[in-house]
Amino acid sequence: MVGVLGGLEAIRALQRSGFRPKHSIELLIFATEEPTRFGIGCLGSRLLSGTLSPDAAAKLKDRDGESVDEVRRRAGLNGNLQDVKLPTGYYKAFVELHIEQGPILERERIPLGIVKGIAAPASLRISIEGAGGHAGGVLMPDRKDALCAAAELILAIENAARSSGAADTVATVGVCDVFPGAVNSIPSRVGITLDIRDTDLARRDRAMQTIERASQTISAKRQVSIQSEVLNADAPADCAPEVRAALADSCREHGFPFLEMVSRAYHDSLFISRIAPTGMLFIPCRNGYSHRPDEYASPEDIARGALVLAESLARLSA
Amino acid sequence: MVGVLGGLEAIRALQRSGFRPKHSIELLIFATEEPTRFGIGCLGSRLLSGTLSPDAAAKLKDRDGESVDEVRRRAGLNGNLQDVKLPTGYYKAFVELHIEQGPILERERIPLGIVKGIAAPASLRISIEGAGGHAGGVLMPDRKDALCAAAELILAIENAARSSGAADTVATVGVCDVFPGAVNSIPSRVGITLDIRDTDLARRDRAMQTIERASQTISAKRQVSIQSEVLNADAPADCAPEVRAALADSCREHGFPFLEMVSRAYHDSLFISRIAPTGMLFIPCRNGYSHRPDEYASPEDIARGALVLAESLARLSA
Repeated sequence: MVGVLGGLEAIRALQRSGFRPKHSIELLIFATEEPTRFGIGCLGSRLLSGTLSPDAAAKLKDRDGESVDEVRRRAGLNGNLQDVKLPTGYYKAFVELHIEQGPILERERIPLGIVKGIAAPASLRISIEGAGGHAGGVLMPDRKDALCAAAELILAIENAARSSGAADTVATVGVCDVFPGAVNSIPSRVGITLDIRDTDLARRDRAMQTIERASQTISAKRQVSIQSEVLNADAPADCAPEVRAALADSCREHGFPFLEMVSRAYHDSLFISRIAPTGMLFIPCRNGYSHRPDEYASPEDIARGALVLAESLARLSA
Repeated sequence: MVGVLGGLEAIRALQRSGFRPKHSIELLIFATEEPTRFGIGCLGSRLLSGTLSPDAAAKLKDRDGESVDEVRRRAGLNGNLQDVKLPTGYYKAFVELHIEQGPILERERIPLGIVKGIAAPASLRISIEGAGGHAGGVLMPDRKDALCAAAELILAIENAARSSGAADTVATVGVCDVFPGAVNSIPSRVGITLDIRDTDLARRDRAMQTIERASQTISAKRQVSIQSEVLNADAPADCAPEVRAALADSCREHGFPFLEMVSRAYHDSLFISRIAPTGMLFIPCRNGYSHRPDEYASPEDIARGALVLAESLARLSA
């Protein structure tokens, strides 16, 4: 919300102040950054930047098997996805205001963060197929319980991230769907997702190989089949020096301390950085919480962020 | 289906043969034996036998928080649950025909099984509460991932059953609900179910204590809270000697080999055994499969089961 309304307020503040830009300033509101109904976020910016092909996007399916194309057409959105991609050079610069989604700024009592680079995310859908049966009728040695296999894999994933050698590796299993999902039935099939990120692409790939090896071991030991499908495996992005400079100069102009930092979450900026010089400005959020009902940023921090954003837009559009 | 239609066919066959019973023969069709929408199966026989109090039954809730009472009234079932319980001695005997739900009869090529006793089932709902957050923003050492904790507990449950000292102990986690359940969110809360059974009540209780200790260790190590709620913890049942004798005599009359065996699955019989002398007759099922779409019993085995059932009903009602 701060990304959209903070941007709107920054533009309005520039208008109120009588500022006349040389380059037009546009507010981009991206579709479906957050929801992962179709397995991946940032569908809007992926399509605008050409990171995701229109054909591949149209075919993405949700849990019920409905495709992006079916869902958008039913909602009356009948445009041609082929026309969405922006040409490289369309924007002189792109800036995104965002809460940090981590605890560093709050902990260090620094009101603003200027992002140097965005961590590289990959996400996979992993399907584990064992054998079902009655919870009373099948004795333990005869079982091929898909949820027990998934449990081992979930712990192997956690361990691969913890033992990568760097604190920057994070891995998360956020979804675990059990079939048939009844108290008295042995799980025959489990679907989990893996979200793995790192600021270093090679280290992330090594952690993924560790997980792949664990998966083969579990599959052999428990006689279950484990299949994975890569939903996305994006490269990390560096923020553009000229945008970082405009943000830093704006902070200094107002005497605001700032921290240069890495974004561990990914954003529409990650994808727009493929077609335009991009920067990000962070403000603190309470306890580093985000993607939770109690996510919160104070009005003072939001106002300070919008002010520095307005100042930076003025510098970049002059 | 064999329990209902086999019973119906047995009664019709007795009518066709001109048999006149001294004691009436009734076909009982129990409500919701299989579905565990409200956490436990056999609601009908639990209420008929008074094993579950009408007040407790009315308040059972499904995943969406709807109670048995709300759901049944909406379906037009407005009767008084207090009137459901049958008096002890209402039935002279009760017999249930069922597929084995295990592989023994098929493997041993024995066409019929006479149940000696029914294993003691217990089921629990376990809730694990950790801390959510963004899958990119929160580093591994700062996490209290509820799904990783659940994964450890699922493996501890499997291990408690495997290491009980007897093959008769089985434990199953059939449900695993993850909140918020998104690719890019650390699970803050996970709900699992535990179904644990044994032919020996003391050994089952020891396995449950092992699981409870594992749960405390995981809770302390991962700083998550783990709460469990017992949905049911029933005692095992012995089948009545006079009903077993009627079933055995009927098998012998037709020259059918039979095996005396334990039922590891539980049935409406477990609850009716509290108020009436009860017996069960098993027929083979393919690969021991049940609670699966490919559950199958051959027409020949079903017909043989219905024949022995009819013969036994004649003996018991004479």
